Amino acid sequence: MKSPDAIRQLVKAFSRLPGIGEKTAVRLAYFLINAPEHVSTELSEAIQIVQSEIRLCATCCTFTDQDRCAICTDTARDASIICVVDSVQGLRAIEATGDFSGRYHVLHGVLSPLDGIGPEELRIADLMKRLTDTVEELMIAVAPTVEGEATAIYLQRLCAPLGVTVTRLASGIPMGADLEFTDPMTLSRAIEGRTRIG
Amino acid sequence: MKSPDAIRQLVKAFSRLPGIGEKTAVRLAYFLINAPEHVSTELSEAIQIVQSEIRLCATCCTFTDQDRCAICTDTARDASIICVVDSVQGLRAIEATGDFSGRYHVLHGVLSPLDGIGPEELRIADLMKRLTDTVEELMIAVAPTVEGEATAIYLQRLCAPLGVTVTRLASGIPMGADLEFTDPMTLSRAIEGRTRIG
Repeated sequence: MKSPDAIRQLVKAFSRLPGIGEKTAVRLAYFLINAPEHVSTELSEAIQIVQSEIRLCATCCTFTDQDRCAICTDTARDASIICVVDSVQGLRAIEATGDFSGRYHVLHGVLSPLDGIGPEELRIADLMKRLTDTVEELMIAVAPTVEGEATAIYLQRLCAPLGVTVTRLASGIPMGADLEFTDPMTLSRAIEGRTRIG
Repeated sequence: MKSPDAIRQLVKAFSRLPGIGEKTAVRLAYFLINAPEHVSTELSEAIQIVQSEIRLCATCCTFTDQDRCAICTDTARDASIICVVDSVQGLRAIEATGDFSGRYHVLHGVLSPLDGIGPEELRIADLMKRLTDTVEELMIAVAPTVEGEATAIYLQRLCAPLGVTVTRLASGIPMGADLEFTDPMTLSRAIEGRTRIG
């Protein structure tokens, strides 16, 4: 016995979201049916509002409801250093540390030739346009994966001739982790990047 | 730096869904922003359509877009046996076996005095109204948890004086499971409910 069409459409729409399989989609749909009306209304309206209001910042390409985002328009932020992240999640993670007061640039992905993602698919041209005399350092903060490393090296080659210093976040043993359970690649990086005490 | 209001509202709306914490809600929101426009549109529309079209079947209380559901209006289904489930998911699970051709009744919960769920919170009155001469058996198919068992016993006491046979699904070792990893409660039930071979 099939579910009513309306429910099947909703399950299908939920299933398109990342990490949501059919069983979870069914649970979410049934939850909404059972929940007070405002729960459904607020969700569907929030989706529509995001769709109509959110765009990419004209400067750094993060999500914003203005022409330029709150960070790019904040004159107190250091314009001489740009932190390059692969996603808005990356930007949020760096912001959460409270240790970075420069600007950002969101690539919206990393280079991945096998998936057909070349420099044109990323916001690299927008980044290059920003490399005026003001910018002294590009801090690459993409994840240290194969694709992330390739992206970092690509950006370094692109920017070096412009006299911009390109740095990347340190890789090493996460705080509180056990050496025994740290993978050899990470340990190699930690040895390579060892720092002097005192 | 805060996210734009529209994004925070969407994250909040997603966080209300079961099993979705804030990090997942953020991932879902960002996914929708990056996804093609029709993905968002289809999700918000599907939510609205479900909200306006889906109601409870006037007979069995399952979800339907008609006055009475497809099972209740199917005259080929056996009206002498009603399978009582706690949720529409339960109904779907029984239907998926293909082994049941009777009718259903969805309680929309199980008795749970600690959570303030008494008989009035469930669709028990609707069930009692259905117990006419036609109905010979009530097959209780709620999960064998403490609350499920209490619900089964409650229904049995309510229905016994009416001459309706009340049965419940067998509990025992799941097919393919190892005795070693089967909990003692389940094993006790399996021993208690052992059946003759041949």
